[in-house]
Amino acid sequence: MHALESYTALIEQEIASIQFPHTPSNLYDPLRYFMNLGGKRMRPILTLMGTELFGKNRTESIHAAIAVEVFHNFTLIHDDIMDEAPLRRNMETVHTRWNQNIAILSGDVLFVKAYQLLMLQQGTHLPALLEIFNRTAIEVCEGQQMDMDFEFRNDVSISEYVEMIRLKTSVLLGCALEMGAIIGNASKEDRHLLYEFGQHIGIAFQIQDDILDLYADPEKFGKQVGGDVISNKKTLLNLKAMELANSAQKIQLAELSSEQDAVFKVAQTKELYSQIGAKESCEVEMQAHYNFAMNALDQIQLPEVNKKPLIALADYLMVRIS
Amino acid sequence: MHALESYTALIEQEIASIQFPHTPSNLYDPLRYFMNLGGKRMRPILTLMGTELFGKNRTESIHAAIAVEVFHNFTLIHDDIMDEAPLRRNMETVHTRWNQNIAILSGDVLFVKAYQLLMLQQGTHLPALLEIFNRTAIEVCEGQQMDMDFEFRNDVSISEYVEMIRLKTSVLLGCALEMGAIIGNASKEDRHLLYEFGQHIGIAFQIQDDILDLYADPEKFGKQVGGDVISNKKTLLNLKAMELANSAQKIQLAELSSEQDAVFKVAQTKELYSQIGAKESCEVEMQAHYNFAMNALDQIQLPEVNKKPLIALADYLMVRIS
Repeated sequence: MHALESYTALIEQEIASIQFPHTPSNLYDPLRYFMNLGGKRMRPILTLMGTELFGKNRTESIHAAIAVEVFHNFTLIHDDIMDEAPLRRNMETVHTRWNQNIAILSGDVLFVKAYQLLMLQQGTHLPALLEIFNRTAIEVCEGQQMDMDFEFRNDVSISEYVEMIRLKTSVLLGCALEMGAIIGNASKEDRHLLYEFGQHIGIAFQIQDDILDLYADPEKFGKQVGGDVISNKKTLLNLKAMELANSAQKIQLAELSSEQDAVFKVAQTKELYSQIGAKESCEVEMQAHYNFAMNALDQIQLPEVNKKPLIALADYLMVRIS
Repeated sequence: MHALESYTALIEQEIASIQFPHTPSNLYDPLRYFMNLGGKRMRPILTLMGTELFGKNRTESIHAAIAVEVFHNFTLIHDDIMDEAPLRRNMETVHTRWNQNIAILSGDVLFVKAYQLLMLQQGTHLPALLEIFNRTAIEVCEGQQMDMDFEFRNDVSISEYVEMIRLKTSVLLGCALEMGAIIGNASKEDRHLLYEFGQHIGIAFQIQDDILDLYADPEKFGKQVGGDVISNKKTLLNLKAMELANSAQKIQLAELSSEQDAVFKVAQTKELYSQIGAKESCEVEMQAHYNFAMNALDQIQLPEVNKKPLIALADYLMVRIS
């Protein structure tokens, strides 16, 4: 998607210009390393687009955009500790390359750095920006805690699961967009509509991610197909299957969860999910959130041409599986 | 010190009124628990006193004061993980009572809570408050990292050690006072002088803490006398002893560091430190910081009566050992 390149170029340039001190090197080397691991930089792009939507120049919200990206990276450093993840973007995580204490502490510093960057966003908007930023930061932590709690529960409902992904990942997309809209002097109503757009695109994207784990084209998918199935991870696919299964299918699902042959397990689960209609049910839910997002964007009274970049980004994120 | 009670009463009342949500309980129960473990609440008292010094009512800086205390508690939760500390104020630490991941995440939430509380401090002062708060938060992390790095180094200089305690603990006292002064509409010069007062009282207090580890009255001292000596912890006493020791004394110090009999080790080290003059050297350094602090306070052009609570607090902190 060629049009994104001018956004990412600006963002990468700003990230490269962040000056971390040299000492203590065990505190700052991990941050230099981690901030340069790359990624799609989707959140700061949303902030810049949120400002442009209301007719302002994207450079006006660049500090807020980088603050959101820096905050996101802070959460990744701490999440990687909690998830005991050895790799992030095919490179060692901070706690693996250095150690856990360094990952905790350098994460903490990166969080403060996000606030410092946000403070560069001068003007009367600062209190409104800080308010949504703080609220979102807390929600992201709540989502991560729910995710950790779910590991030890067998009674997670579909609505709880959707609430978890909303908090853990989707609210930050809404926040990124709304911060852009605040800087673009949008009305409260338009800010809210744009937030809803971001949040529901985020939920749709996460559901798509759950589906892709099992149904992606192995050649195009970056990771092992069926990884969630092999590790018995709770996903919407899995929860929908449990909900829709008849008694016999429930027994089959329970048996498959302890299956040791990974290839057999993935193939059989895929077959069973198809019989149950779990994939279709997830797609219905995904489409509902996508439609909700588009409807929110539609309600913002602005020329269609202003909305084109956001619609293109949403379509880029939703790869249209099936 | 009776006069402190009215400050702590106000602070405890405000802390008790902080509303944490009920769910996820694994995120918020630790915070309710930890914020109620008590403590001297010295930092928020400093903020309130900083405001009163300039003739304003202490209630004007109450939100900033609580923000500083909440931030301090966040650092304690994360430090306890890094230090593998089982107890804090004779109660289980968060990572011991719950687990490490919960301690990381609930600490993160508490940090955001500090910003939310600071945001309640309405008015034109917010950018100045956020600026010193952010800078101090980063410095505290730098100090903790230096402390962790020192464990693996044998060439720590006295100036590096003093810089470590300045960052790890003393800058937050300066910050607490300066935030109070900002809300009290103090001039930039007076704000800076009050910051220096807090910072150097903090350094003097930490040096006193190092001395008390070995020279406190066991009946009055809350913890095991000689704990730092037994664990070979780097303290100013230890670094001064190494600096001032002659060749024979250096050998004795090295031998004592691997001594297994704790009672013998503590008694012999104390005797050796006295011969070397390490305690006196620490006291000279402590007194210099105390004098520097008092001199800074002296330069603030305000009636002596305004300064009395701060001088009384400083004297309360410095228990006048020897």
